[in-house]
Amino acid sequence: MNVTLGGKKKHFRTVSFRPDSNRVALIDQRLLPHTFSLLETENFRQTALAIRNMTTRGAGAIGATAAYGLAQGSRAFRGKSLECFELHVQKVFQVLADARPTAVDPVNAMRQVLAAMAPGTTVAEKQELALRAAEVFADEDVEHCRAIGQWGAELIRDGMTILTHCNAGWLAFVDIGSATAPIYEAQSQGKQFHVLCDETRPRSQGAILTAWELAQQGIPHHIIPDNAAGHYMQRGKIQMVITGADRVLARTGAAANKIGTFTKAVLAKYHGIPFYIAIPLSTIDWETADGMDIPIEERSEEEVLCAWGRPQVKGKKGTGSSEKSIQVRVANPSSHALNPGFDVTPAELITGFITPLGIIKPTELMRKLKGRS
Amino acid sequence: MNVTLGGKKKHFRTVSFRPDSNRVALIDQRLLPHTFSLLETENFRQTALAIRNMTTRGAGAIGATAAYGLAQGSRAFRGKSLECFELHVQKVFQVLADARPTAVDPVNAMRQVLAAMAPGTTVAEKQELALRAAEVFADEDVEHCRAIGQWGAELIRDGMTILTHCNAGWLAFVDIGSATAPIYEAQSQGKQFHVLCDETRPRSQGAILTAWELAQQGIPHHIIPDNAAGHYMQRGKIQMVITGADRVLARTGAAANKIGTFTKAVLAKYHGIPFYIAIPLSTIDWETADGMDIPIEERSEEEVLCAWGRPQVKGKKGTGSSEKSIQVRVANPSSHALNPGFDVTPAELITGFITPLGIIKPTELMRKLKGRS
Repeated sequence: MNVTLGGKKKHFRTVSFRPDSNRVALIDQRLLPHTFSLLETENFRQTALAIRNMTTRGAGAIGATAAYGLAQGSRAFRGKSLECFELHVQKVFQVLADARPTAVDPVNAMRQVLAAMAPGTTVAEKQELALRAAEVFADEDVEHCRAIGQWGAELIRDGMTILTHCNAGWLAFVDIGSATAPIYEAQSQGKQFHVLCDETRPRSQGAILTAWELAQQGIPHHIIPDNAAGHYMQRGKIQMVITGADRVLARTGAAANKIGTFTKAVLAKYHGIPFYIAIPLSTIDWETADGMDIPIEERSEEEVLCAWGRPQVKGKKGTGSSEKSIQVRVANPSSHALNPGFDVTPAELITGFITPLGIIKPTELMRKLKGRS
Repeated sequence: MNVTLGGKKKHFRTVSFRPDSNRVALIDQRLLPHTFSLLETENFRQTALAIRNMTTRGAGAIGATAAYGLAQGSRAFRGKSLECFELHVQKVFQVLADARPTAVDPVNAMRQVLAAMAPGTTVAEKQELALRAAEVFADEDVEHCRAIGQWGAELIRDGMTILTHCNAGWLAFVDIGSATAPIYEAQSQGKQFHVLCDETRPRSQGAILTAWELAQQGIPHHIIPDNAAGHYMQRGKIQMVITGADRVLARTGAAANKIGTFTKAVLAKYHGIPFYIAIPLSTIDWETADGMDIPIEERSEEEVLCAWGRPQVKGKKGTGSSEKSIQVRVANPSSHALNPGFDVTPAELITGFITPLGIIKPTELMRKLKGRS
């Protein structure tokens, strides 16, 4: 999507590749929203580190980063022995897979690259095929998000206010995003609407990443505390909720997503407000049936007890005064916190899934999508 | 309640009076949870300032502070003319009332003191009556909270986990608190239970004040993000919710309280979990019928866009490294926020009100309590 730099709009992907220098270029998401900066990794180990240290994050984005990283590692091989090359590629694969061991996207993306390399008969051919396959993976990610946008935009009417939770925006994919895709597409169709971004404590991805994205695209929006969405629903100020998901169960229609998503779904149901989840097909789990079987990651309590931001000078609004974000202890020093990273929203609370193949009811995921991913 | 200082437990009230020095002693709530410190005001103007600058906060606490401030101002009068004394008292009243113009508690408390002074025939008599009336007001506040605790403790069973929102603890009253009163009473009865404190963004009163209170009393508790309560209810981990309220409508049973309370009530209803609101009778509004008629204060957006805490040194857990809390900008610098301070929970979501006169259903407030406050 577009980023305004020095007063000019410029298009960026979250992750892209520089064939001449064999570098992967990543938007450094650790510095957002205060600084926009590209980080170029010089080799596959640096690319793995960028996945590990959250320079890049989000299902589609880390998938494409790993695909590019595998191509990058393959292309760095200086030799002609196919046997040595295969061993080298196996090592590259493992280093990149280990960078985010619980995520399925990097592994799936790299398997797609490996399959594309198979027909090559020389090292040079395989290197060329790896790069092409990584580009195809990234382009497909963009196309899936674009299709989500086209289906989802049909739900958005002039005058609506849409609630979002966390960040399933273009920063989490290669471009466009999932939950934000309908919003960007509706904007390009000239529709007038407003977005409320849940702050999304404890990591504040809504206040930091989604708000930054929407500001860059010039979409009217306000950040609200996670506590406020219910109040605005009660007062008739929210007409639709769109979130992303980390895992959707085809067999039952339940969805795991950032902590707090379930709460918004319960509130939407109570108020009769449509609640949509936007996902590419890669998010679908075809096996698991019971949402309670999805393991919920318990994250560090520091995330709840502290906050991160730039020191603010009194009287100076907007950006903080200092270049560097710091950690501050908000909570009572002798108290502990619980920090579940995700929750599970049952099918009965979900109006529909916005997918690249259309808007699908939770009960129809299996019948309509199985075998089409 | 008790505060542990230098390894020893000591009892404090949130506000108290020193007759010999004519000073009001207040727990400085601006410094919590990092520093416990008493601030002693030397005259009624300093007492008014302490109300204005949030040294003390909460309905019962600012009521008692104003009552003591009026006694303090009256006792500082050096003369024998009753006429001059009355003029002086009027001025003291006005300065203290102006310190928090939207609150009703300071004015009601001071009217009680004025009424008690009326029978006095000399300045000295009236000064003496003022002090006695302020002490009575403070003692009554404590007694009301104690009665709330006794009724509410009957609801708490061994093994329960109780969810709280914001701070309606002893810091908001003279002692004991409203929402925390059943918790403290159940503890003194030897019951074993656990408390989850909603962080309560944007001002984090749950993470700061409620958690500090519970830690001081040795009550097992964890802070959770506001987003997490729904998840824990879904997993059967919460058996009861108790909050306070800023205003309860006797005619309909609706309650206005800190933003996010309504969300917790909707979640509790969805899961069939009892949702109680603990209040002294002074919180009841006997006139207003429609909860939508309660004005909702829109607070500064800075509270949502920023966080406050002590800079944290890496590797050093617990309290921050620096003495002073600072403000950090968390959110995207070019985005704005909405910050409604309160929301309204309708009667249908409230299991009961825990009052000093018993546990009352929302539909029975008028019939059972009118005329008894």
